[in-house]
Amino acid sequence: MCEIQVPPSDLSENLGKLLEGEGADVTFEVKGEVFRAHKAVLAIRSPVFKAELWGPVGKKNRRRITVEDIEPAVFKVLLHFIYTDSLPASGDLDGDGNDEIVEHLLVAADRYAMERMRLTCESILCRRLDVENVAATLALAARHYCCKLKDACIRFVNSGNRIKDVMASQGYEHLKKTCPSIVMDLLEEAAKTSVC
Amino acid sequence: MCEIQVPPSDLSENLGKLLEGEGADVTFEVKGEVFRAHKAVLAIRSPVFKAELWGPVGKKNRRRITVEDIEPAVFKVLLHFIYTDSLPASGDLDGDGNDEIVEHLLVAADRYAMERMRLTCESILCRRLDVENVAATLALAARHYCCKLKDACIRFVNSGNRIKDVMASQGYEHLKKTCPSIVMDLLEEAAKTSVC
Repeated sequence: MCEIQVPPSDLSENLGKLLEGEGADVTFEVKGEVFRAHKAVLAIRSPVFKAELWGPVGKKNRRRITVEDIEPAVFKVLLHFIYTDSLPASGDLDGDGNDEIVEHLLVAADRYAMERMRLTCESILCRRLDVENVAATLALAARHYCCKLKDACIRFVNSGNRIKDVMASQGYEHLKKTCPSIVMDLLEEAAKTSVC
Repeated sequence: MCEIQVPPSDLSENLGKLLEGEGADVTFEVKGEVFRAHKAVLAIRSPVFKAELWGPVGKKNRRRITVEDIEPAVFKVLLHFIYTDSLPASGDLDGDGNDEIVEHLLVAADRYAMERMRLTCESILCRRLDVENVAATLALAARHYCCKLKDACIRFVNSGNRIKDVMASQGYEHLKKTCPSIVMDLLEEAAKTSVC
């Protein structure tokens, strides 16, 4: 009878404002670029940051951290996800030509133990699967313990009887060398489902 | 064809963990109770906290703040809302006997300019309206600029032709004294919609 509507949560939007750097208490140097952040936010979003910033292995008062193994463009998206729980709104990462940044983001998700970001990347890469990239995607999935993406790749190959095209693709030889057991899984599945 | 599900956002749940106090950089003393909090989180959720903690009027390095005008139980719920964008999950506040804490929380929402928390309180009080509390609720709504709750109260009185019962209720005399213009609105509306 009497109802007052409450608008949807604005927590993510509010937190996103912190990306501007106000009140930051830690600075990251990433290959020449500087990013300012807030220890408390990083620590609750990633157990690895928590250990680095608050844990016994971390120096309690670290204010400057150098990151050597992530590109600045990827680190920027990583911070965006940490603060807002979403990828940048422009949709940049879900378009063509951005496979690479999503792959690097998946590697970062694995490194910082951010499960939801990992699944977000797996989901994007899964939607982009084709016969040319599926072998490389499988190698990536295997290297970073992405069970769902790995299963999706194997299903993709077998659902369309695509094994011959995949064997002719660029990433296949690399996959054979780096993940022979997965290639065997793939070939066995293909043998089972073959219509020939 | 190929789909990997991403679980819902866990930002609120992650932030909620900060309520345990780890990494806190500010302490509130509230009538004998102590609450530890994080300046960055408070500042992005309330423009009043932002001014107090980061603005030119605030002392940049304030680490201890005394709060005189809020009860500890209310301050605890306020912090919960700041960190999680929701009221405590136990549903304590939406049951009977908790009108008072929701009213105090509405006052706190006004004081700290937290619009979504204000609407959340307005929504709860609106669902609890009856002829006995509507006059007091109207006075509260008027005092704290809650347009939606005020309109809901007036609709409540008129929709059921309840004006006589409201005039006999305990809060009515107080409302007449404190908000005569609202009482006139109420009586005029009642006169218009009267079925006599």
